[in-house]
Amino acid sequence: MDMDGTTADLGFARLDLGRAARTGLAETVYGPGKTPEQLTAIVAELLRRNGAALATRVSPAQAEALKACDWAGDHDPMSRTYVCGTPPEPTLGTVCVCTGGTGDLPVAEEAARCAAFFGARVAREFDVGVAGLHRLLGRLEAIRAADVVIAVAGMEGALPGVVAGLVAAPVVAVPTSVGYGASLQGLTPLLTMVNACAEGVTVVNIDNGFGAAAAAVRMLRLRERA
Amino acid sequence: MDMDGTTADLGFARLDLGRAARTGLAETVYGPGKTPEQLTAIVAELLRRNGAALATRVSPAQAEALKACDWAGDHDPMSRTYVCGTPPEPTLGTVCVCTGGTGDLPVAEEAARCAAFFGARVAREFDVGVAGLHRLLGRLEAIRAADVVIAVAGMEGALPGVVAGLVAAPVVAVPTSVGYGASLQGLTPLLTMVNACAEGVTVVNIDNGFGAAAAAVRMLRLRERA
Amino acid sequence: MDMDGTTADLGFARLDLGRAARTGLAETVYGPGKTPEQLTAIVAELLRRNGAALATRVSPAQAEALKACDWAGDHDPMSRTYVCGTPPEPTLGTVCVCTGGTGDLPVAEEAARCAAFFGARVAREFDVGVAGLHRLLGRLEAIRAADVVIAVAGMEGALPGVVAGLVAAPVVAVPTSVGYGASLQGLTPLLTMVNACAEGVTVVNIDNGFGAAAAAVRMLRLRERA
Amino acid sequence: MDMDGTTADLGFARLDLGRAARTGLAETVYGPGKTPEQLTAIVAELLRRNGAALATRVSPAQAEALKACDWAGDHDPMSRTYVCGTPPEPTLGTVCVCTGGTGDLPVAEEAARCAAFFGARVAREFDVGVAGLHRLLGRLEAIRAADVVIAVAGMEGALPGVVAGLVAAPVVAVPTSVGYGASLQGLTPLLTMVNACAEGVTVVNIDNGFGAAAAAVRMLRLRERA
Amino acid sequence: MDMDGTTADLGFARLDLGRAARTGLAETVYGPGKTPEQLTAIVAELLRRNGAALATRVSPAQAEALKACDWAGDHDPMSRTYVCGTPPEPTLGTVCVCTGGTGDLPVAEEAARCAAFFGARVAREFDVGVAGLHRLLGRLEAIRAADVVIAVAGMEGALPGVVAGLVAAPVVAVPTSVGYGASLQGLTPLLTMVNACAEGVTVVNIDNGFGAAAAAVRMLRLRERA
Amino acid sequence: MDMDGTTADLGFARLDLGRAARTGLAETVYGPGKTPEQLTAIVAELLRRNGAALATRVSPAQAEALKACDWAGDHDPMSRTYVCGTPPEPTLGTVCVCTGGTGDLPVAEEAARCAAFFGARVAREFDVGVAGLHRLLGRLEAIRAADVVIAVAGMEGALPGVVAGLVAAPVVAVPTSVGYGASLQGLTPLLTMVNACAEGVTVVNIDNGFGAAAAAVRMLRLRERA
Amino acid sequence: MDMDGTTADLGFARLDLGRAARTGLAETVYGPGKTPEQLTAIVAELLRRNGAALATRVSPAQAEALKACDWAGDHDPMSRTYVCGTPPEPTLGTVCVCTGGTGDLPVAEEAARCAAFFGARVAREFDVGVAGLHRLLGRLEAIRAADVVIAVAGMEGALPGVVAGLVAAPVVAVPTSVGYGASLQGLTPLLTMVNACAEGVTVVNIDNGFGAAAAAVRMLRLRERA
Amino acid sequence: MDMDGTTADLGFARLDLGRAARTGLAETVYGPGKTPEQLTAIVAELLRRNGAALATRVSPAQAEALKACDWAGDHDPMSRTYVCGTPPEPTLGTVCVCTGGTGDLPVAEEAARCAAFFGARVAREFDVGVAGLHRLLGRLEAIRAADVVIAVAGMEGALPGVVAGLVAAPVVAVPTSVGYGASLQGLTPLLTMVNACAEGVTVVNIDNGFGAAAAAVRMLRLRERA
Repeated sequence: MDMDGTTADLGFARLDLGRAARTGLAETVYGPGKTPEQLTAIVAELLRRNGAALATRVSPAQAEALKACDWAGDHDPMSRTYVCGTPPEPTLGTVCVCTGGTGDLPVAEEAARCAAFFGARVAREFDVGVAGLHRLLGRLEAIRAADVVIAVAGMEGALPGVVAGLVAAPVVAVPTSVGYGASLQGLTPLLTMVNACAEGVTVVNIDNGFGAAAAAVRMLRLRERA
Repeated sequence: MDMDGTTADLGFARLDLGRAARTGLAETVYGPGKTPEQLTAIVAELLRRNGAALATRVSPAQAEALKACDWAGDHDPMSRTYVCGTPPEPTLGTVCVCTGGTGDLPVAEEAARCAAFFGARVAREFDVGVAGLHRLLGRLEAIRAADVVIAVAGMEGALPGVVAGLVAAPVVAVPTSVGYGASLQGLTPLLTMVNACAEGVTVVNIDNGFGAAAAAVRMLRLRERA
Repeated sequence: MDMDGTTADLGFARLDLGRAARTGLAETVYGPGKTPEQLTAIVAELLRRNGAALATRVSPAQAEALKACDWAGDHDPMSRTYVCGTPPEPTLGTVCVCTGGTGDLPVAEEAARCAAFFGARVAREFDVGVAGLHRLLGRLEAIRAADVVIAVAGMEGALPGVVAGLVAAPVVAVPTSVGYGASLQGLTPLLTMVNACAEGVTVVNIDNGFGAAAAAVRMLRLRERA
Repeated sequence: MDMDGTTADLGFARLDLGRAARTGLAETVYGPGKTPEQLTAIVAELLRRNGAALATRVSPAQAEALKACDWAGDHDPMSRTYVCGTPPEPTLGTVCVCTGGTGDLPVAEEAARCAAFFGARVAREFDVGVAGLHRLLGRLEAIRAADVVIAVAGMEGALPGVVAGLVAAPVVAVPTSVGYGASLQGLTPLLTMVNACAEGVTVVNIDNGFGAAAAAVRMLRLRERA
Repeated sequence: MDMDGTTADLGFARLDLGRAARTGLAETVYGPGKTPEQLTAIVAELLRRNGAALATRVSPAQAEALKACDWAGDHDPMSRTYVCGTPPEPTLGTVCVCTGGTGDLPVAEEAARCAAFFGARVAREFDVGVAGLHRLLGRLEAIRAADVVIAVAGMEGALPGVVAGLVAAPVVAVPTSVGYGASLQGLTPLLTMVNACAEGVTVVNIDNGFGAAAAAVRMLRLRERA
Repeated sequence: MDMDGTTADLGFARLDLGRAARTGLAETVYGPGKTPEQLTAIVAELLRRNGAALATRVSPAQAEALKACDWAGDHDPMSRTYVCGTPPEPTLGTVCVCTGGTGDLPVAEEAARCAAFFGARVAREFDVGVAGLHRLLGRLEAIRAADVVIAVAGMEGALPGVVAGLVAAPVVAVPTSVGYGASLQGLTPLLTMVNACAEGVTVVNIDNGFGAAAAAVRMLRLRERA
Repeated sequence: MDMDGTTADLGFARLDLGRAARTGLAETVYGPGKTPEQLTAIVAELLRRNGAALATRVSPAQAEALKACDWAGDHDPMSRTYVCGTPPEPTLGTVCVCTGGTGDLPVAEEAARCAAFFGARVAREFDVGVAGLHRLLGRLEAIRAADVVIAVAGMEGALPGVVAGLVAAPVVAVPTSVGYGASLQGLTPLLTMVNACAEGVTVVNIDNGFGAAAAAVRMLRLRERA
Repeated sequence: MDMDGTTADLGFARLDLGRAARTGLAETVYGPGKTPEQLTAIVAELLRRNGAALATRVSPAQAEALKACDWAGDHDPMSRTYVCGTPPEPTLGTVCVCTGGTGDLPVAEEAARCAAFFGARVAREFDVGVAGLHRLLGRLEAIRAADVVIAVAGMEGALPGVVAGLVAAPVVAVPTSVGYGASLQGLTPLLTMVNACAEGVTVVNIDNGFGAAAAAVRMLRLRERA
């Protein structure tokens, strides 16, 4: 297992350049805890090596620093994601990102943009929560057309389980920290989703749209193994 | 506030005989922590005073002791409830008790039998959980006919929220301790239900079918105040 | 189940216009996570369709945007609620909103104003917590006159249980996040209320005055089904 | 601080014979985790040194072993306490032990018997929970006559706070593990009691009647310091 | 959405016969909370309708009842699963079930047998936990050959994250309740897995081998959509 | 129980003027959640009726408003307490307030100043935590001289238990929110204190110096009942 | 990193025979979840390869099976440990195992016997909990003579922190599940110990005497690196 | 045990000057909860008595005050540590501080600087988390050269367990509060680390780099006891 050639040591960080070869997903950058200088240095290195880079949870100060760099990039404030370079074409299949409510949009957009960065086609079906089932049932055909569903919900977090009972695709559930006190900053919908009766639901961390996208893309890759 | 005449002091217990006058719900007996002798003594006193008695969470040993008494009574092992005497006629209106799955039956039956004891008409719609929505939608007409809905569910506990989005009646949610590890013995569905997006859901304790019935009956009484 | 005509798709939100027909409670707007522009757009659409609109948890910036709209509206900073248009007459019956202390007022006022928006008559009995029982007992007649009681309390959250032992009306319990550290931002009174010995208490989410009002109004509607 | 003469080393245990001198409360024995032989050896040593001994949480097997010893002793199965020798006369003042319900009796009796062992006069007022306030108010005179109140309750655990608002004595609160699921084996009433609005409540561990008695007796000793 | 023809009402249960058509996974039976009679009745109905049936968490008494039926079936005591009839051929692709230790075998076998029931080829790589990395690295080639990996681990639950950093397949993580006290009956590894740094991990409930298998099979189906 | 004459209704608050008669402790004011105007109005009323007033958790804005009133008062920023009027002479006995560290001072001073307001003599022994036992043992004589000990500690919260093993006085334990992450904002020391092996420890809420003082004063009053 | 030669594949288990070379601690066996046959097979293999074997958490049935084997072994029921073969001489240095109380003995003995198995000299100082400090101070000289201290305590778990303030050796803290309800089966002392003010305390899992011994032995090995 | 001469009483603090003699680690200062004046006074006293001083968790305001003092000192903003005077030479042995990611650097640097203050040689191996194992394996030789390893990680916290399976040195695990919601501000990695399968891991508090350093230095001292 010769792994020595695949690391870029920046001193404060050790970039895992062999990740795409190992896992199919190129290394990306998680913003929190990094200075703007550290973040731009990492993005620059990834862009140079991989031809594209993705940063998530980008703070306003980090976004400013990235905008000041001498390459073009796209920063989306709502989802706090930054993309630069030339990501792959969307050829892997379709991910449908659903949300229970409007408050889940930042997480859903993180998922959508990350999935696109990794090469997925992305469909969006927002505000189809279970309190008004007809909204969901009215969009069912569109949701069923997707290869993988990412279901994003806060509060009670019931959406993924209900969706999984209606479609055949894998459902990746993302709990969000949206809600009243007893949602426990997202711990309640996380637990709800892990307990979903409908088989086929698997769960990622609270507000982790990125992780849902990465998992969904791994699943899409199975289409290439037919 | 003259309350002195309304207590029966059995030494080990102080029966609240004025409860029906104050709250509309006669005192009942909760079995755990009482010896069979204590339980039968309380039931006897309530039967003598009120003409009927209800005991919940009756253990097998307690049930044996009750059966040996010189009055007729009805013990249901699944719901662990015991009723004797002549409860009121079912004139208050209709409670529909729904469950997510078959494993919720003991709690649902406790709710159903207690509601009947307090004078409600009871409808049952079992195993209509959200993993197969058509089961619920197929019974929607029957559920909508009820004045109050008691929705009983374990695991993810999504049933009450989905029901509340489809009916106009108050929905009393009962979480059950049925499920895999992360249901946390019912704490997870309790939290789910408290976070339901659909307005109109209120929640009682885990596995507390009795409490749901009592609350539902208080609501039914509002029909008399029209 | 023809539900297609009842949704207004604003792109970022999918308004559930059939909700009043299904559940008796018109769709309302929850402020958090929405931009001022999104909020005013939703309020405008609800006002146009329903003749009245209610927004809860309105932030100062959202309130500014709403005030700048070309229709009249009433914003209450303490309860963070906003009402515009012509809500129904208060004909459904009476809800009494009680609080344990003065710190519970914002949540209690949210409950009171939302209940009024949905057509309830509202009575207020504030600062009647159980540490000085005579305050509660002195107001008992007024509380007993109500059809439904909403009991709001933080810290130990004992008020709803004590009230439920004294009245025959349904008691909707609202835990608040007011208190010292071990109140766990309201989780402790929520648990207290769910464990109330006095039957007839049902519970909503922490600080969720809106949810309590909606549940209470569903109950009041039972008076029309007599 | 010469402490060397005050320890009795039994090999498996190191008895703190100086405890009464330091804290006013003689060392006692906590049964769990000890073999019957270990327990009887400790009781024998304490009886020999102090003239009296108290064991708590005595298992049936331990009780058998104690009964087989060649001294007289009094084992109470409900409270799982064992007393032998000659405890002090009840001269310290009066502790009133109240309970919310009948299920709290084992813990209450542990408190009562331990307080008596340490020299307190004990009054008992059982089943005066807040769901039927008149039961408590009807016994208020008796409770107010006590120097210290021990209030024992499970489920919602509201009794100590209500009592503390009605009496001037210190109130020691004991949560019990009696209740439905969300009482979390007593954690909920513990939290309730710690959050009591009525000042003057202090709390001991779940089901810890012994600890409540010991604390109450320390308080009673203050009467000697007048 | 005509769903009426797809339910078999057994009185105590409402079988979701349309599930395979909707989700690709035929309805199965979860044993807990059902009497042996109820379980055999459901298995019989599923066998009659679908030609095969799977029951999970089968108790010894339920297993006895199933063995007494007049059809052949295969009960595996370790995984508590029962299969009868003719499940599909293993044509969907390969699932590799890995475990951290020997104590995880019951859950892993549940996953393996359920995946096989749904039509997957199953590979097993047991006892490859991260405390001895060479065990895992020595089996890496075999694990990488799978289309989907199910990683089962208790205690710290680190296996799925480490595996996901080494393979390109989706990794379904199953926490188990195996471990010392602070594993909190599986809650700790569940949280660990949800927090895995390596992207591509999604999580199911504690000890839920069945749920992992169902999710994995949904993923395998994507190979048919290439 | 004539309680009607003892309430002062300010509209937003219902002052419990009979509290001193019932419990020995005059009503005081808890600042959070009250506007500066509400707070000064309550203080004014209490001062007028009782001749003295105590406010706790006073915010800077509230303190400003109180300073602007036309009576003299003493605001201590560290403990956030405000006292005005003429509290009773310190004749009840001595409370010793100990702390584990310097970070516990705000809570300890709240306890000290409140105890003084209620009529206790107060001794202070700060920074005597168990990490350097000699600090505590060196002050033991002073601590033993007190009638009641209030032990304030964050982090691990071991101080009260160690003190209780060394003194005969009742020990009121106050957990503080001082510490690293796993102190859980004071929940950990609260649990530690409730589990203290040394009998005689009772516990109040996190950071609740006021509650500890009130409880200690109730205990001191026992000296008058000798 | 050639690791292939160091694994013994028993089918159901993959023994890590290179562990001693890598970590200085030979592989041992954890009993739970293994059949008696599996356990004896593993012990036999380890004995054959390493000349000695240690099994922990051995159940009575497993102990019976081990006793029936054709080699000599030593089973200690209290600590549930089994040792066979020829462990190393006790040359590494001294570990002192302290306990707070007698109920902690099973965990302490597990630590003591495992440390001895790994080559440590073991001293025992039991029942020196902080409720009677003189017991601890009286044994301080003996404790200070050790190279590493393992401090075992349940309930409040204060012992390790107090010890660490008095000695210079590393202190390994072991929380036990002994105690009243709010000890939360050992979670409370675990949190206490992690929050110890005295620097130098590190913590292992609840009741994990084995883990404490292994960590202590790693520390002792440092003496060889002088 | 003459301890009286070893305390410096500053009024607000009681410095434990005998700590180095007792535990080998001189008293240091924890910044939170102290005014800048208090902090500088303590630092001045420690510097005067011990010739060196270390302050941790120094706030910007405290750092300003320290810089204004008339002695030289070194403040590192990232780790929030301040050192002045002449710490001991790094002669005790080598501590290797590893991190899972870049976000763990502040905690890791606190550990590194504190270990250096206490006399350790420090090696740093950052960003070697388990999501890319080759990063860790590529640095294994360097890590194995250390006498003690401090492994710092947030999110899932798997690093210490994996390291402990690869090295023979004691591994001190430090959980950090870095991560998505379900890391629960570091509680999840703390639990993960306590449950590590690889023996030899012991754990300190969340983000407590100081505590890890102190424990590691105690271990290093064992080299002097060979």
